[in-house]
Amino acid sequence: MMQIDERNTYLTDIPLSEAQQQLHKALQDVNKSAALPAEVVPLRDALGRVTAAPVWAKRSAPHYHASAMDGYAVNAADTLEATETRPVQLTLNEQAVGVNTGAPLPPDANAVIMIEHVQHTDASTIEITAPVAPWHHVRMMGEDMVATELILPANHTIRPVDLGAMAGCGHHTVAVRRKPFVMLIPTGSELVTADTAPEPGQIIEYNSLVLSAQIESWGGKTHIAEIVPDEREKLIAAVEWAIDQQPDLVLMLSGSSAGSKDFTAGVIGNLGDLRVHGVAVRPGHPVIIGTAQQTPIIGVPGYPVSAALTGEIFIRPLIAQWLGQRKPTAPTVPAKMTRKQLSPTGDDDYVRVTVAKVGDNYLATPIGKGAGVITSLVRADGLAHIPRFSEGVNSGDEIRVQLYRDSGEIERAVLTMGSHDPMLDLLNQHLMDAYDIRLTSASVGSMGGLVALRRGEAHMAGSHLLDETTGDYNISYVQHHLKKQPAQVITFAHREQGLIVRKGNPAGIKSLDDLRRTSYVNRQRGAGTRVLLDYELKQRGIPTDEVGGYDHEEYTHMAVAAAVATGIADCGMGVRSAAIALNMDFVPVGWERYDFVIPEQHLQHPGVLAILELLNNDVFKHELMNYPGYDTKETGTIQYVHQP
Amino acid sequence: MMQIDERNTYLTDIPLSEAQQQLHKALQDVNKSAALPAEVVPLRDALGRVTAAPVWAKRSAPHYHASAMDGYAVNAADTLEATETRPVQLTLNEQAVGVNTGAPLPPDANAVIMIEHVQHTDASTIEITAPVAPWHHVRMMGEDMVATELILPANHTIRPVDLGAMAGCGHHTVAVRRKPFVMLIPTGSELVTADTAPEPGQIIEYNSLVLSAQIESWGGKTHIAEIVPDEREKLIAAVEWAIDQQPDLVLMLSGSSAGSKDFTAGVIGNLGDLRVHGVAVRPGHPVIIGTAQQTPIIGVPGYPVSAALTGEIFIRPLIAQWLGQRKPTAPTVPAKMTRKQLSPTGDDDYVRVTVAKVGDNYLATPIGKGAGVITSLVRADGLAHIPRFSEGVNSGDEIRVQLYRDSGEIERAVLTMGSHDPMLDLLNQHLMDAYDIRLTSASVGSMGGLVALRRGEAHMAGSHLLDETTGDYNISYVQHHLKKQPAQVITFAHREQGLIVRKGNPAGIKSLDDLRRTSYVNRQRGAGTRVLLDYELKQRGIPTDEVGGYDHEEYTHMAVAAAVATGIADCGMGVRSAAIALNMDFVPVGWERYDFVIPEQHLQHPGVLAILELLNNDVFKHELMNYPGYDTKETGTIQYVHQP
Repeated sequence: MMQIDERNTYLTDIPLSEAQQQLHKALQDVNKSAALPAEVVPLRDALGRVTAAPVWAKRSAPHYHASAMDGYAVNAADTLEATETRPVQLTLNEQAVGVNTGAPLPPDANAVIMIEHVQHTDASTIEITAPVAPWHHVRMMGEDMVATELILPANHTIRPVDLGAMAGCGHHTVAVRRKPFVMLIPTGSELVTADTAPEPGQIIEYNSLVLSAQIESWGGKTHIAEIVPDEREKLIAAVEWAIDQQPDLVLMLSGSSAGSKDFTAGVIGNLGDLRVHGVAVRPGHPVIIGTAQQTPIIGVPGYPVSAALTGEIFIRPLIAQWLGQRKPTAPTVPAKMTRKQLSPTGDDDYVRVTVAKVGDNYLATPIGKGAGVITSLVRADGLAHIPRFSEGVNSGDEIRVQLYRDSGEIERAVLTMGSHDPMLDLLNQHLMDAYDIRLTSASVGSMGGLVALRRGEAHMAGSHLLDETTGDYNISYVQHHLKKQPAQVITFAHREQGLIVRKGNPAGIKSLDDLRRTSYVNRQRGAGTRVLLDYELKQRGIPTDEVGGYDHEEYTHMAVAAAVATGIADCGMGVRSAAIALNMDFVPVGWERYDFVIPEQHLQHPGVLAILELLNNDVFKHELMNYPGYDTKETGTIQYVHQP
Repeated sequence: MMQIDERNTYLTDIPLSEAQQQLHKALQDVNKSAALPAEVVPLRDALGRVTAAPVWAKRSAPHYHASAMDGYAVNAADTLEATETRPVQLTLNEQAVGVNTGAPLPPDANAVIMIEHVQHTDASTIEITAPVAPWHHVRMMGEDMVATELILPANHTIRPVDLGAMAGCGHHTVAVRRKPFVMLIPTGSELVTADTAPEPGQIIEYNSLVLSAQIESWGGKTHIAEIVPDEREKLIAAVEWAIDQQPDLVLMLSGSSAGSKDFTAGVIGNLGDLRVHGVAVRPGHPVIIGTAQQTPIIGVPGYPVSAALTGEIFIRPLIAQWLGQRKPTAPTVPAKMTRKQLSPTGDDDYVRVTVAKVGDNYLATPIGKGAGVITSLVRADGLAHIPRFSEGVNSGDEIRVQLYRDSGEIERAVLTMGSHDPMLDLLNQHLMDAYDIRLTSASVGSMGGLVALRRGEAHMAGSHLLDETTGDYNISYVQHHLKKQPAQVITFAHREQGLIVRKGNPAGIKSLDDLRRTSYVNRQRGAGTRVLLDYELKQRGIPTDEVGGYDHEEYTHMAVAAAVATGIADCGMGVRSAAIALNMDFVPVGWERYDFVIPEQHLQHPGVLAILELLNNDVFKHELMNYPGYDTKETGTIQYVHQP
């Protein structure tokens, strides 16, 4: 661990646009702002490369007058008199020469008669009953390309058909932009490679994988250096070595520790010019820009979301510039925000969102996870840019979202909000396999799901709300919360709830009565599990303020299990599958019913229809039943039809 | 050349859907209908590959409670009493341990106080003035991923961030689908490789390049065999050798000659089962489907457009199926047809179209070139599928178009119709370089351009229509044809018209008076050059029926030049640059003015604005002036403002 005194504080963050100008100026200063020079590659290797110059036809195509049909090449003048009643005979191999499609016309021929329109009279003549116009069924020289004609402009990304056109007019190589070459140096004493088992305090280094793959997908090539610990001399040596490989760009990938972040700036300052240290963009603040020995260097923040967005915001335009392409523009779609998003006033805020199409609207929901959570990018459907000084957006505002997935995929997806169940993953996998439809879920608790339905912000809601008076589930809540919306309540599964405890049950917990003497981790208000706990506590006469940790709220079964696994609490209530997933023990409390609440207007959505099919599919039910803690006896059953 | 008697006639074409079913059945018969098995690759090589199984987290991330800030790890209980007026001191390295971001919390700590919120009192204690809540500024174990959680589903195409997520939860390899392996065998005695200079009758073989690149871009890998001539034994040997390489698919790429087409079917029938010979799809008819030695074989038609579309229609879904992906769906946009398109009733018709956005509408115009014209695919902005039995579409009908370009690129493009000038390529190149805007042009003659403007089907029109009575150009025509549309007439250039003749002027043509005794190639009715010719003939008292070849019409200067170059005619009228392009001689007739006619409503279109800037840009004008046969003395001048 670093000594406190060595720490630097960050320079002031500068606005994104200013940082981009600084980068532009840095490139000019080191003579790196133009497109890269050309290299000549065989057409076989040219797919996806970018033309460095216009490509002109060297040769016409066809390069001779070619028959466009199987038939006989003739001189049209010889055919003028032919009629049904007065056929004309043409001497074979003199007046009429058999030609296949693509064959050159003989010197005197200027038309082709299709084989179907000819009667053989004998071995030496053919007979025709209609005249043919000059150049009929002939592909004239240059029909496709005329020599000197422009085939492809410069700065064009080569597609498969372009290869054919170039080959067809006399090229077998093409001048393309050299690929921008980027050296990546992962830095940080806490970093270890992906093939090792990390100790506490060690972190798997994978930003190099992500950035290298980004750069290659944008048309660059990369080399990833070995991880360099936070030692000034080693860092300097690593950067000098990297520069010696003559890259177009060096990326220093900081670890997420403060040490890594600060050394990068120091090293660049030491070797060359430190130009930017901190950019007002979220996530991503500690971006560093500099140059050394005529080479641009970018310091990339260590948090994975910051790193990937630094790639998109700073590095992608650079690669495009070097390839002679225009600044990449990402197409966006309009979407309605489902939650308020507060952005720091001075920052350009890039918000990862899930996007679903419910009814006619795209709905965007901020994922709201920190820059350390790479799964937030994996699960994001898109990215919304909230510009500096806009002070965020309100729920219901329209924003523009750059989609990370095909819009068709998003339109087919089903959005379920409400209570979380680990087996939604299983449902999603079956849905993907059999229907190519994704299930998107947001864990907001059972009550939160019903509220989302009321607002038209989800296709369905997962719910396991116990009605204390009836002992039934969900129905009275639907009646109360969906006053004006017809809906159906359809069972997903019965599932076993209980107390998740560490392996071997070290606290010796036998029932909920033990909550008075142990530490507990709770679910949030509105969660079905919370309702169940409160009901059980009341039955037992245990006041909530006697339950230690009652105020510690988590949002999913898995988060509860993780909190117990790591010793934050002795136990927490959740489904058996969550305990099994983390290899923990489980003290059963009872079985409950988990239903989907589906508004009538979404019952015909193709994805909802597919889910209903799966709930009645024996293979799926069998697989679900086989998970301990699940019972499918009423899976697919319509429990209630709400017709307000 | 083949002997006529050996020719086979085609089997009857079967409908596309039936051919697809036959292919499906063929795959089942040879046990090739399932997704391919998995292979394990390092994450470094996994970008763009398709997961063969769900990827579950092996390890939680973080795998320990980590500090989320630079600061001091504390036990929250020790901080409860701290207030502004009664600060609390914590002993360094006992009650408060300095931690960097990412560092593990010491065993008893459960919160982190940011360094900014701490006052050093001395070397052994820190002072705080506010309490901290448990787990504040802590990234709890599993915050990103909990062990056993689903990270990626099966059949997912791996993106850069996915690599990071997999590495972060304990993977350094991933099981992906083996790449489908396709052997391509080009066949045809007339075919030669792209690096040779073809003789008449020889054709450059490039379909293998196009199909191989298509297959690789869809996720397969390929090997291209050497070209096999149309000899049954050699073809059989080639197919047997290809099957020995254990491919998932063999493609026999026929040449475009009848011989190549028929041998393929014979060879498949000889070695195995010929299942389909001819599909009712345009372009593409002679598609062949069969199997031999447990290997599917597809015979691909020789015409390049047919070959590329066979790739998209038949081979792309196959690759997707083997990768475990769903049938690829191409997003489409609605567009208004600008011309009638007649489709053969029994065929699925795939129509290459140019697409422009004029006003609020996407307009689609069929390119209307044969299956032999690969540049029609290169220049196409999209593809419209006109289903079997629909009998084509009328001008003004809405169709759906699968775009080949980014919709933003299409929306920025300028569509000019009307007269063709070879220097529009130069304008396009400047427009692309400086503005990233494409100029799309359609050659329909000057008059055709004005008609297109009247119908709202173009942003501007190129025109050089001489008014015999005034000697001026275009203005009276605009007055007559654009009755109700305000517009401006702005000069592109003056250019030299004349008679294009073969090198050395073998026919000894000195002036238009010589047209009585030579053969001529004309432009179509409505072309400015045709108007000019008719005017000049009238001046000279030459009746048009005394001009041999007056009825042979071509649509561009280049086509006229090509017709003369290949001896179809002795001369044709056109601009000097067309003669220069094909290295021909030129007999000057005179200078004329070529203008752009631009409706007022399009004058603010960003692409039109860019063109007007270029017409007044000295660099562009200088470059244009340097081409022989162009004069820029009035380039950019507004000749007329039409205010009806």
